[in-house]
Amino acid sequence: MANSRFQYVRGFESEARLLPNTWIVVRIDGRGFHKFSAKHGFKKPNDARAINLMNAAAVACMNEFPDIVMAYGESDEYSFVFDKRTQLFSRRGDKIMSSIVSFFSSTYVMQWPQHMVDAEGQPEPLVATPHFDGRCVLYPTLENLRDYVAWRQVDCHINNLYNTTFWTLVLKGGLTEYEAEQRLVGTFSKDKNELLFSEFGINYNEEPLMFRKGSVLHWRRIPVTVTKEGPTSKADPTPVVRTVTRQKLTVIVDHCDLLQEEFWTEHADVFTSSS
Amino acid sequence: MANSRFQYVRGFESEARLLPNTWIVVRIDGRGFHKFSAKHGFKKPNDARAINLMNAAAVACMNEFPDIVMAYGESDEYSFVFDKRTQLFSRRGDKIMSSIVSFFSSTYVMQWPQHMVDAEGQPEPLVATPHFDGRCVLYPTLENLRDYVAWRQVDCHINNLYNTTFWTLVLKGGLTEYEAEQRLVGTFSKDKNELLFSEFGINYNEEPLMFRKGSVLHWRRIPVTVTKEGPTSKADPTPVVRTVTRQKLTVIVDHCDLLQEEFWTEHADVFTSSS
Amino acid sequence: MANSRFQYVRGFESEARLLPNTWIVVRIDGRGFHKFSAKHGFKKPNDARAINLMNAAAVACMNEFPDIVMAYGESDEYSFVFDKRTQLFSRRGDKIMSSIVSFFSSTYVMQWPQHMVDAEGQPEPLVATPHFDGRCVLYPTLENLRDYVAWRQVDCHINNLYNTTFWTLVLKGGLTEYEAEQRLVGTFSKDKNELLFSEFGINYNEEPLMFRKGSVLHWRRIPVTVTKEGPTSKADPTPVVRTVTRQKLTVIVDHCDLLQEEFWTEHADVFTSSS
Amino acid sequence: MANSRFQYVRGFESEARLLPNTWIVVRIDGRGFHKFSAKHGFKKPNDARAINLMNAAAVACMNEFPDIVMAYGESDEYSFVFDKRTQLFSRRGDKIMSSIVSFFSSTYVMQWPQHMVDAEGQPEPLVATPHFDGRCVLYPTLENLRDYVAWRQVDCHINNLYNTTFWTLVLKGGLTEYEAEQRLVGTFSKDKNELLFSEFGINYNEEPLMFRKGSVLHWRRIPVTVTKEGPTSKADPTPVVRTVTRQKLTVIVDHCDLLQEEFWTEHADVFTSSS
Repeated sequence: MANSRFQYVRGFESEARLLPNTWIVVRIDGRGFHKFSAKHGFKKPNDARAINLMNAAAVACMNEFPDIVMAYGESDEYSFVFDKRTQLFSRRGDKIMSSIVSFFSSTYVMQWPQHMVDAEGQPEPLVATPHFDGRCVLYPTLENLRDYVAWRQVDCHINNLYNTTFWTLVLKGGLTEYEAEQRLVGTFSKDKNELLFSEFGINYNEEPLMFRKGSVLHWRRIPVTVTKEGPTSKADPTPVVRTVTRQKLTVIVDHCDLLQEEFWTEHADVFTSSS
Repeated sequence: MANSRFQYVRGFESEARLLPNTWIVVRIDGRGFHKFSAKHGFKKPNDARAINLMNAAAVACMNEFPDIVMAYGESDEYSFVFDKRTQLFSRRGDKIMSSIVSFFSSTYVMQWPQHMVDAEGQPEPLVATPHFDGRCVLYPTLENLRDYVAWRQVDCHINNLYNTTFWTLVLKGGLTEYEAEQRLVGTFSKDKNELLFSEFGINYNEEPLMFRKGSVLHWRRIPVTVTKEGPTSKADPTPVVRTVTRQKLTVIVDHCDLLQEEFWTEHADVFTSSS
Repeated sequence: MANSRFQYVRGFESEARLLPNTWIVVRIDGRGFHKFSAKHGFKKPNDARAINLMNAAAVACMNEFPDIVMAYGESDEYSFVFDKRTQLFSRRGDKIMSSIVSFFSSTYVMQWPQHMVDAEGQPEPLVATPHFDGRCVLYPTLENLRDYVAWRQVDCHINNLYNTTFWTLVLKGGLTEYEAEQRLVGTFSKDKNELLFSEFGINYNEEPLMFRKGSVLHWRRIPVTVTKEGPTSKADPTPVVRTVTRQKLTVIVDHCDLLQEEFWTEHADVFTSSS
Repeated sequence: MANSRFQYVRGFESEARLLPNTWIVVRIDGRGFHKFSAKHGFKKPNDARAINLMNAAAVACMNEFPDIVMAYGESDEYSFVFDKRTQLFSRRGDKIMSSIVSFFSSTYVMQWPQHMVDAEGQPEPLVATPHFDGRCVLYPTLENLRDYVAWRQVDCHINNLYNTTFWTLVLKGGLTEYEAEQRLVGTFSKDKNELLFSEFGINYNEEPLMFRKGSVLHWRRIPVTVTKEGPTSKADPTPVVRTVTRQKLTVIVDHCDLLQEEFWTEHADVFTSSS
């Protein structure tokens, strides 16, 4: 080949593969999203539109890469869990991770106009470039993997309780941001719950699940009814219209508690395997 | 901290850093762009709009990550070269690579409507999700780095000469794609040059540089004239409007020959350093 | 510190740690042992003295690094399996592997004179430098680990059956090495078994287990009786000599079949853990 | 092949190769040598026999692996520098490093009796197992490599000046080890030089170079005269004995100053290459 003189540079590339038979987690994380959300007027403490947009981008990733068995999102981050047996890109971690973060980013921008609409249904202009960094982490056992997603969900809970209390103090209590911060120094979860309830009549446990638990994406077989037109039988060629119901694997956006057994029991077929 | 029971899972993350004092190249590559370009009616053999869009996204990356000293693009791939001394993200390769590929992807989608316009100036609808994979490669010496970009530029040349001949045979010569492919089996560069010239009157060397050489992005100080309004001096407070000229570092899109010395001599300050 | 100007070079070192909660296998392999064994007149097909020396070096490694839960040796190679929870050297793979291969090598030379003795009990002179290369491999599950040691034990079986037949043909059958090799081309296990039995009256299954199965090292609590001298009681200071029996963890050299359940059942406490 | 069912476990092995065109440094370091040297009565502050043994083992490594272009030793550590173009073991770092550390360890034990002799010329018994850990470090440029060996040589200087002063205070000054340590707290190099000279009449700069500078191993062509017996010419078949002088590459043990230019100028052919 004509370019052989330079081709030796390929030898500097690494083709490292991820350890087989381990759960691959790709976690992506918004870069500079504090500023990004301020610039685009995200509602505080949570903007359901922005969360739904994150979820939509994650759903698109799962449909594009069906070896993702579940995903968990909170705030400006998303974790994608691949089947431990996946052979996607021969388990080359850089290809797997970069493809996810790229697909997610593109989808986020593409779907922005549908999700980020104002009260009149008009899309908010996108005036900065949303982008994410990514990483691959391996977990050898199901217990380690469950502890990973539990870690993220506990993180969601702690942050959301804090943010809910902080912004209630600011938006309803009339405190400055500095005063609200000072007010919360040294408080525990129960103090924040109590403050919300006694001062503002807010029962934190009645706040939307999506805010308190983050979003859990998984697959479910869902009956899909389609209409087909065709002859009834060979004997009778007259075409008739029939409805046929099929089970279609579909991504479900859920907000369940991953520290409980229920989710894992329900998906035992996915998360337990012989080896 | 409240979530300490699960936090041990952080210990499974790798914080590997890239070898210091080496040139970091991040190369991104379109996934499934053959199909993507067909779906969006990209012109053959080259669609200047699509190339300009790639270039615009790469320019945006350089402005966002100023430690990129040059970039080279051809077809659906782009290589970004970081200053060998960069400390971006403490040289964590996954963060560097993922941030680039994410920023590029988002920008590609955001700028699509400006670039992918039809003859009437209307943007083509974006009907699939453009995305890229990425990788990091290290080159210890300037010679290795120059051979790397030379390798990509030679690749551009070979592909473009082939594609130009192939599509000329199809679009102007009336051959089927299969016939064109057969016609080119076993041909050398000079055969393709000859075929283009003798049968179609095309002098390949007069084809646009952007198609033949790809795109070379680099920084240049450019005089920028701004108007300022203010008092002339402390003694005379009357405000006057003056024009001030400043040197501003700007990304230049070039199509020069990287196998020649010129580019490297011109940027010797960037590409040679004491260690 | 006085040498700070140069200390930046430490930043080029990697401190990569092995993935937590995985079985670490360090396998060492003799370099040039074909030549080494020829030079020192190792008996063919097996030299029990040389195997015992390998085993002694491996036992010494286990006593030095008690986090090794088992080891398997055959021919000039040895595999050491670390407890999946080991924190030895903070799981830095290069330190773990290099320490093992170094300790093994030193012990091999130190114990050579005790093991490599001739018929008169005189040590064979050591006229070349025995040395080994090493590698670290991770296995996430017990099933993978069992398959690893099974792979090595099957390798031992295949090689030993071949070597036993080959050297019987040469040493007892009077064939040249070339003729013996030709004779065995295309033969299966049952053919070699049959050949040994029908032509030489050798029942392969009665060959020593150590040759057929390799060596399996593991820990066992063994009662050790020690004599202690001291007063019977505070009231009676007269010193008496007593024997005390204690359970001491000791490395056992075994030749059991690792494809069977027995070994794994017996050591279930070591090889199964909650996570 | 018969063992195919288990062979999948090979897929868990990493075949990672070191970045091409970089200097590979393998540094080995004695494990527990403080205790080891105490157990074997090494002289303080330096035992020339023990250093010569280290040097002999390092010379043996260079003869076994001729791609090592230089080595530097001090105390219980040794650094081996490979030609940046070496293809040894296809640049698999674990194989390179483990082979060196193993060969060094074996040689150390084998040559112990020649070097560690008492006043009567009797070898000291070897009562513990000397062993070393190892690591691979890459340096992209000659400047980085020079700074690495300078770093080790400065380390040697600092430690040796301290140890010389400390042990002089103890052995000649009659201080306890604790008192000597206290005496040296907060002292600079010039203070220790002054103390040695004014109190003990010792000019540190006249201490043996091997102690002050460590050992630098490199290759030199040395004329070797061999006697050959053979006919003078075809015409005259009478055999005569002739002496023939050849240039033979030989490892030199030196104690030069690596912070000076001289060593690097002398070996410019080795340490500078086109790429």
